[in-house]
Amino acid sequence: MTDIQMINAAAERLKGHARRTPFLTSPFLDDIAGRKVFVKPEALQHTGSFKFRGAWSAISALDDETRKKGVIAFSSGNHAQGVATAAARHNTPAVIIMPEDAPRLKIENTRALGAEVVLYDRVNEDRDAIGAKLSAERDLTLIKPFDNAQVIAGQGTTGLEIAEQAAEHGIENADVLICCGGGGLTAGVALALEANAPTLRARPCEPVGFDDVARSLAAGEHRSNAKPSGSICDAIVTPTPGQITFPIMKRLCGPGLAVTDEECLHAMALAFLRLKIVLEPGGAASLAAALFHQDQIKGDSVICLASGGNVDADMFARALNSYGTPK
Amino acid sequence: MTDIQMINAAAERLKGHARRTPFLTSPFLDDIAGRKVFVKPEALQHTGSFKFRGAWSAISALDDETRKKGVIAFSSGNHAQGVATAAARHNTPAVIIMPEDAPRLKIENTRALGAEVVLYDRVNEDRDAIGAKLSAERDLTLIKPFDNAQVIAGQGTTGLEIAEQAAEHGIENADVLICCGGGGLTAGVALALEANAPTLRARPCEPVGFDDVARSLAAGEHRSNAKPSGSICDAIVTPTPGQITFPIMKRLCGPGLAVTDEECLHAMALAFLRLKIVLEPGGAASLAAALFHQDQIKGDSVICLASGGNVDADMFARALNSYGTPK
Repeated sequence: MTDIQMINAAAERLKGHARRTPFLTSPFLDDIAGRKVFVKPEALQHTGSFKFRGAWSAISALDDETRKKGVIAFSSGNHAQGVATAAARHNTPAVIIMPEDAPRLKIENTRALGAEVVLYDRVNEDRDAIGAKLSAERDLTLIKPFDNAQVIAGQGTTGLEIAEQAAEHGIENADVLICCGGGGLTAGVALALEANAPTLRARPCEPVGFDDVARSLAAGEHRSNAKPSGSICDAIVTPTPGQITFPIMKRLCGPGLAVTDEECLHAMALAFLRLKIVLEPGGAASLAAALFHQDQIKGDSVICLASGGNVDADMFARALNSYGTPK
Repeated sequence: MTDIQMINAAAERLKGHARRTPFLTSPFLDDIAGRKVFVKPEALQHTGSFKFRGAWSAISALDDETRKKGVIAFSSGNHAQGVATAAARHNTPAVIIMPEDAPRLKIENTRALGAEVVLYDRVNEDRDAIGAKLSAERDLTLIKPFDNAQVIAGQGTTGLEIAEQAAEHGIENADVLICCGGGGLTAGVALALEANAPTLRARPCEPVGFDDVARSLAAGEHRSNAKPSGSICDAIVTPTPGQITFPIMKRLCGPGLAVTDEECLHAMALAFLRLKIVLEPGGAASLAAALFHQDQIKGDSVICLASGGNVDADMFARALNSYGTPK
């Protein structure tokens, strides 16, 4: 189980490899939110999302013999790019299993980052069987996207930085809003804050209709989403909280917040205008919650962990068309 | 005349007020450029451009009595926002003189940042006369955009950071490409590099047809542009190099580079895709030079100072439409 010692150890291994992303602010965002808004843009992390941290943490924690044989991951998104890049920099072979109908650009990017991409047919093939066969043949280590103690520890290094940066900015009591899928980032950050900044409170942010973590926290036990997909926030849509991540979130997190797709597009446009950063819809969920659900938030300041920026030009243009010109 | 002592003193005054912008990288950009590319995004600076540094430096250098009376600047662009914000944080009144046909958004932004905006009619009124009258009446101090020793010192703090960050990244010999208008940023950075990283070479980047600094450097004396405007890189179009900045650039800079508007749009799209940052056309000139004029650059690495990100949604969408989907 991930604890603060594991997070501190992951931070040591990540030193000089992950970027310490800044805190960004704008008086225009403060006006909208009714309090000081601090955005920590993990979109500026290597590979455009926080996933690089967890992947690096997990791969660097393997013993040399195991690492040399290689790693395997199932992902067509940010986790794939994080694992591919972290593996390449460790000279570790990486196999990424993706559906053959994944966007061509994501497949090519993952290959360009040095991974071997294995495609499967979503309808006629069993992803897990393909992965199990490859893992057995080559003795590969599976890197799960969130239910992995070392992955959670890596994501938790973001929380160590938030604790330091909050102190630098004189923030004492504040909600820390976190874009949340399976809960790896949220659980890791919550553990880091518990140890280093216990007056900051981690809170997961999810799309309306895909707020399994919020509902699970409210119920005190696992809840699932009615549908598997249907939000533009694809990076943070998962069916139910993780087995490892949920007990941590249940112990440490404040209530979850749910935001609409339109609120995320609006937050993307405001991040473009006021912070000059690129966020993907799911990566803007925390900022959307701060800007448009202020009555659910406590404190004079709010910290938004903006988790990623891997968005295609069409979706970004959609945000700009709708909300890119201030009224 | 600005020197390294003035830059170091400006850095002390800017401490805790300006952001230390990071070095960003992407293997995809390295592939295009044929060498390692390090981008320092001053788009992430307060007010979306490096201009905040110079404005803060100049205002903080005034004696209390003078500062209390207020400052005045002529600008409809990044300098206006830098002066307005730096003045507001010093509780200093700021008057910004803008043409009445400036974009409404820029006028409103500058007001929202706390400045008094005075509009004039470009055709029938004399900007300088209006400024002189107001300055005399209220005893305001004029903050020029580049021909001011303390402004140059403030912009030079970017160069102090580049020297440190280059050392952290093991960069020994490299060209430092700088988006260049009147030369305040270029001259300041060149002075900082001379003192702290003499193997790094500052080089101005300008739009084709508005490369007055490049031609002046080649001629050894001031040259002017044929036209006053006509590039989308409006932030870095100036008629001729500054009186204070040119002698510094002449002594320290390598040859200038000229980039087309299309190259800047392409660089903006690549910065969106690969770095997750928003650049304005003029702020992308240095990256465009690194990516598309690699035969004019020396060394295994190149550093691009991306000067600003204040671009409207339409122009950004134009960049994405043309170049936002990788081939």
